Amino acid sequence: MTTLLTSGDRLDLNPDRMLPADAGLRPLAREIYESVRQLPIVSPHGHVPAQWLADDEPFSDPTSLLITPDHYVNRLLHASGIGLDKLGVAQTGFTPEQSREAFRLLCSHWHVFRGTPIRFWLESELTDIFGLDVAPSTDAADELYDAIAAKLATPPFRPRALYDRFGIDFLATTDDPCDDLVHHQQLAADPTFTGQVAPTFRPDRYLEPARTDWNALVDRLGAVSGLDTGTYAGWVAAMENRRAFFKANGAVSSDHSHADARVEPLDAAEAERLYALARRRTITTTEADTLRRAMMFEQARMAADDGLVLTMHPAVYRNHHTPSFERFGSDIGADIPMQVEFTRAVQPMLAAFGTSAYFQVVFFTIDETAYSRELAPLAGFYPSVYIGVPWWFIDAPDAMARFRASVTETAGFTRTSGFIDDTRAYLSIPARHDLSRRIDSGHLARLVGEHRLTLDEAIETAAELVVGNPRRAFKL
Amino acid sequence: MTTLLTSGDRLDLNPDRMLPADAGLRPLAREIYESVRQLPIVSPHGHVPAQWLADDEPFSDPTSLLITPDHYVNRLLHASGIGLDKLGVAQTGFTPEQSREAFRLLCSHWHVFRGTPIRFWLESELTDIFGLDVAPSTDAADELYDAIAAKLATPPFRPRALYDRFGIDFLATTDDPCDDLVHHQQLAADPTFTGQVAPTFRPDRYLEPARTDWNALVDRLGAVSGLDTGTYAGWVAAMENRRAFFKANGAVSSDHSHADARVEPLDAAEAERLYALARRRTITTTEADTLRRAMMFEQARMAADDGLVLTMHPAVYRNHHTPSFERFGSDIGADIPMQVEFTRAVQPMLAAFGTSAYFQVVFFTIDETAYSRELAPLAGFYPSVYIGVPWWFIDAPDAMARFRASVTETAGFTRTSGFIDDTRAYLSIPARHDLSRRIDSGHLARLVGEHRLTLDEAIETAAELVVGNPRRAFKL
Amino acid sequence: MTTLLTSGDRLDLNPDRMLPADAGLRPLAREIYESVRQLPIVSPHGHVPAQWLADDEPFSDPTSLLITPDHYVNRLLHASGIGLDKLGVAQTGFTPEQSREAFRLLCSHWHVFRGTPIRFWLESELTDIFGLDVAPSTDAADELYDAIAAKLATPPFRPRALYDRFGIDFLATTDDPCDDLVHHQQLAADPTFTGQVAPTFRPDRYLEPARTDWNALVDRLGAVSGLDTGTYAGWVAAMENRRAFFKANGAVSSDHSHADARVEPLDAAEAERLYALARRRTITTTEADTLRRAMMFEQARMAADDGLVLTMHPAVYRNHHTPSFERFGSDIGADIPMQVEFTRAVQPMLAAFGTSAYFQVVFFTIDETAYSRELAPLAGFYPSVYIGVPWWFIDAPDAMARFRASVTETAGFTRTSGFIDDTRAYLSIPARHDLSRRIDSGHLARLVGEHRLTLDEAIETAAELVVGNPRRAFKL
Repeated sequence: MTTLLTSGDRLDLNPDRMLPADAGLRPLAREIYESVRQLPIVSPHGHVPAQWLADDEPFSDPTSLLITPDHYVNRLLHASGIGLDKLGVAQTGFTPEQSREAFRLLCSHWHVFRGTPIRFWLESELTDIFGLDVAPSTDAADELYDAIAAKLATPPFRPRALYDRFGIDFLATTDDPCDDLVHHQQLAADPTFTGQVAPTFRPDRYLEPARTDWNALVDRLGAVSGLDTGTYAGWVAAMENRRAFFKANGAVSSDHSHADARVEPLDAAEAERLYALARRRTITTTEADTLRRAMMFEQARMAADDGLVLTMHPAVYRNHHTPSFERFGSDIGADIPMQVEFTRAVQPMLAAFGTSAYFQVVFFTIDETAYSRELAPLAGFYPSVYIGVPWWFIDAPDAMARFRASVTETAGFTRTSGFIDDTRAYLSIPARHDLSRRIDSGHLARLVGEHRLTLDEAIETAAELVVGNPRRAFKL
Repeated sequence: MTTLLTSGDRLDLNPDRMLPADAGLRPLAREIYESVRQLPIVSPHGHVPAQWLADDEPFSDPTSLLITPDHYVNRLLHASGIGLDKLGVAQTGFTPEQSREAFRLLCSHWHVFRGTPIRFWLESELTDIFGLDVAPSTDAADELYDAIAAKLATPPFRPRALYDRFGIDFLATTDDPCDDLVHHQQLAADPTFTGQVAPTFRPDRYLEPARTDWNALVDRLGAVSGLDTGTYAGWVAAMENRRAFFKANGAVSSDHSHADARVEPLDAAEAERLYALARRRTITTTEADTLRRAMMFEQARMAADDGLVLTMHPAVYRNHHTPSFERFGSDIGADIPMQVEFTRAVQPMLAAFGTSAYFQVVFFTIDETAYSRELAPLAGFYPSVYIGVPWWFIDAPDAMARFRASVTETAGFTRTSGFIDDTRAYLSIPARHDLSRRIDSGHLARLVGEHRLTLDEAIETAAELVVGNPRRAFKL
Repeated sequence: MTTLLTSGDRLDLNPDRMLPADAGLRPLAREIYESVRQLPIVSPHGHVPAQWLADDEPFSDPTSLLITPDHYVNRLLHASGIGLDKLGVAQTGFTPEQSREAFRLLCSHWHVFRGTPIRFWLESELTDIFGLDVAPSTDAADELYDAIAAKLATPPFRPRALYDRFGIDFLATTDDPCDDLVHHQQLAADPTFTGQVAPTFRPDRYLEPARTDWNALVDRLGAVSGLDTGTYAGWVAAMENRRAFFKANGAVSSDHSHADARVEPLDAAEAERLYALARRRTITTTEADTLRRAMMFEQARMAADDGLVLTMHPAVYRNHHTPSFERFGSDIGADIPMQVEFTRAVQPMLAAFGTSAYFQVVFFTIDETAYSRELAPLAGFYPSVYIGVPWWFIDAPDAMARFRASVTETAGFTRTSGFIDDTRAYLSIPARHDLSRRIDSGHLARLVGEHRLTLDEAIETAAELVVGNPRRAFKL
């Protein structure tokens, strides 16, 4: 159902793209890839709003779907000199003509995406989802825009129809502990929706007492849980309460991202003392870090009790460019990774819960150095630890290949999380999972080519990586 | 002399395994590998007990030889949910039936070793040492167990016969400074043993004044050396005494592993003051670190005098899972690497001894980031510095390939240590050295394929890496 | 114009050297490489003395040109046991016979350069510049020495003739802020010189108040600028003055290398207070670091005003071996890289100037871990940030390939600096640029082979990397 366009260069995606170029490995990789290509998508961590699926309204226009909310796309255009306002970020009343102009900017800067996975995702979307056969370019921009806009207005491009077409088996969203999860409940109660959309408990803000809005957040947590959050014990009880609510609504994991990975208990009296300081807004940043690490320890303890899988992806400098944050807000592409340390940081948590029956943790990193040095050794000893696959900046072909080469020799294949798309870009989900399958197939093909695995083992392993691993790591 | 078994899948090891898959590089790699495949094994650092060779008793059973003492094998089984007790770790009175059951667990979890060097080692052992032709599996477990057990009872499988068969030229053990080295002396005095088994001076515990058992250790050091270790000067003299004893018994190196790589002198009065605090058990952990770094500086000074090569492999968090340590002890697979820093840490040592005639140091790391950033630059300037090859977690094909690609461009081939097996698993020694030869051959083949070396140069270099480099780095 | 020598092995450089060995990628790489092979050389950062080109005197002998000043060559010979004095380093009255002997040492140790780019550079120089067809060896040493010496005495081997023959389009030197740039002015005023040789403002020493010679340096800065450097405000004004002088003489960038990357403002009173302490030589090292970071912030502010591109390459431990420094001075191969942190360190600078119209910064690192973790994310958001290509120790084939694989997926190709030769070894400039073109061609060939780019795109990108990127990054 390719729509033939008349402007621009043909977009003719090679079926073997991203597979090894080596003539001996290519056929092996192709065979492995073919065996997993059509397996269902398991997506245990992401940022698609549940409301989209609950309401099932058509998407309004190409830009607000493909550009404005996607900081992967935004950031490189911004680096190329295009203001975020031109792309619709934090703009109210962005007009149709501005939307079209933003799309033209993407198309006229198509070359800046060479060598990036963004190009792979968008090309796959154009071809596989929209059936369009020209590459973005200044010439093709308007015709592409119109063709996409026209399709988005049709029923097959509504969120639920796409959910089915994408073959999604499980989709997790990311939610505030105070969220009422009304859209998740609506989906669960709707017999016409046969998918599975689970919330994820993401309490970061409530664990950072140095935030200026922390008192208000904690007040709200008290109100929503019906518990008094005036004490640390009350905060803990309220967290337990909201975790239980999330679990009752299908959640399988809690997700955590702070400046470092440290998780460390505090005795009750000291925790109450720091909490009281925080409530009075007289806590220092050092004390706030100490309290946050104790709060994380409590989250781990709760995880050992309620069985929600704990996922951690620490050490990103949020909102690095202060003026852009003030003008455009968060999640605009200005979060910059930092060095991370896990071995010492998570020792108290793993000493306490590392072999607990219900405890399970997935460690993600953007600092690739942690893979072979810390994460593979941890996951290669602790039955509770899984290595999160490359994510965010390193959700990309060469980085994925480095990941497998870094962790497999120490931890094997069974101790990794399965692919995580972590995306706000709903339409990119199939392409992201597809890319992961291609790269893992290439890695496995190499192991076969080097006589480290048989082809049968590689095919079996590829399927495990797609379906078995995420189900085990996230207890699905 | 393959023993034909009837259960399970055939184990048919490809002679080209671990060589590059590329059709152009494969024949080059094969030719290079063939030129070094049968060269003798030089093993200047490892953990095989000298007593095994001194007594030359038959090994008792497959599990206590292949599973229980080998934390490489244990750790991944533990991560897969199998208690270490089930594998015989720290168990007294482990029965023959328990031993067989442990072997079954290994076999039924064979898939968790896919992509790891453990699989390569064990498969090589089954094929090359035991002549068995089936892969481990639930079905084949008992038959494999019985076949191995039967062979172990025969003369060709005694420690000395295997030593000869493995083609070992030099084998170093790792020993406590207070060890009487009686087994080394026994071997040296035995005209029927023609091998060379040298002790290695490993004084770590005596350099960590914060240990609860440090006073007792230092008392013992005094007793064994016949010197008063009540003062720091006495401690230094006792160390010199024991190093001399080790050297007289064939030692070529001392080996050191602490939480960091810092080596820094202290003036005599301050050292005595801290030492006195330590003896009185009132030293702080910070002071204990300071004293330990000064003690390391003394070891370096002694090395510049007595010529024992200093090897360092810092920055591993020992006994990370406290409950497992309390139940099962050390060296069970729960040591986790940490970030390491060499450049600043070793500057005082290299400023003092870096160009001394007798001083030689080998730096090992599990933090691969140190290779191109610090170790290759250090070894590329200091005539005393050698880069230790990948070791422990990264003694694995892809990691070895990364190592060569990381250090060679800065330090060439001559500044690396030669392969280190570092193993307690005696039977894995040939497979480990073989793997290293395969991977280095693949690396050299690539350099030939890219016209960076001639094939003659590659063949000459391969032999140097196997024999010349360890002999130079360890002054053999 | 190959000179036929009679000693030693033939040096027959393969035209495809350093291109991928893979039979499918090789022809692609060759086609891409051929398209850029002869493009002009843009060299925006290096250490060739402008005086060489101004005076255009013949080079005196092979050793003083190829060995003595080149710490890449020196360091590996030193690590191999050859004293730096034997290589002419810091020697006055080095005799012709000593010079010849130094060259013999290089030749007899030729094998230590296997696998290093030094070999590639020197072989390319022998073949492409001198037209000599034998490889260095003990046997060939004298004949090579004589042949090189003979050519150096002829007009085609004078600096300007070589400049033209190398196809250099732009060459930057590195200069002290107090330099009078007389040689640059001489070249600019000379109608017979048609090249472009620009100074680079390198004020490191003036920003390190803990140096023992800092007061003298700052006094001189005052004298040269005609401004009173007795106060911090005066220091700032003097820096502005000298930057303006450099800019007027063609400078396009300032270059900075300190122990860390931190750039952080200080309020005026505190800066004056610390500056006064520094002038009185009572500043602590911690205060000196604080002042240095504020001085760097001022450099960034000036860059946002005057538009000189700021280049930073922090975190190298200078003069690591104290005794060698005392005997031979700086820049002798004893500088050792350290870990580096950019994300937090440069945040204050980028918050202030990251989107300023005239501000542009290039971050270089030898700590490769920063590429995917910090530099690509920074350059992928900030329009002012460029990622510096591998440099110094990692200006080498495998490291360059790792670089492209590390940064491209996050930042694309457009956000990188273009090749930087950074060399004192004038004759190695063509070989260094050529090597970069070969490796980038290989990387692009792989992307074509994996169907990530079309061949046309790869060819276009290759040219951009050679010419477009350095011109954009350095505003040429």
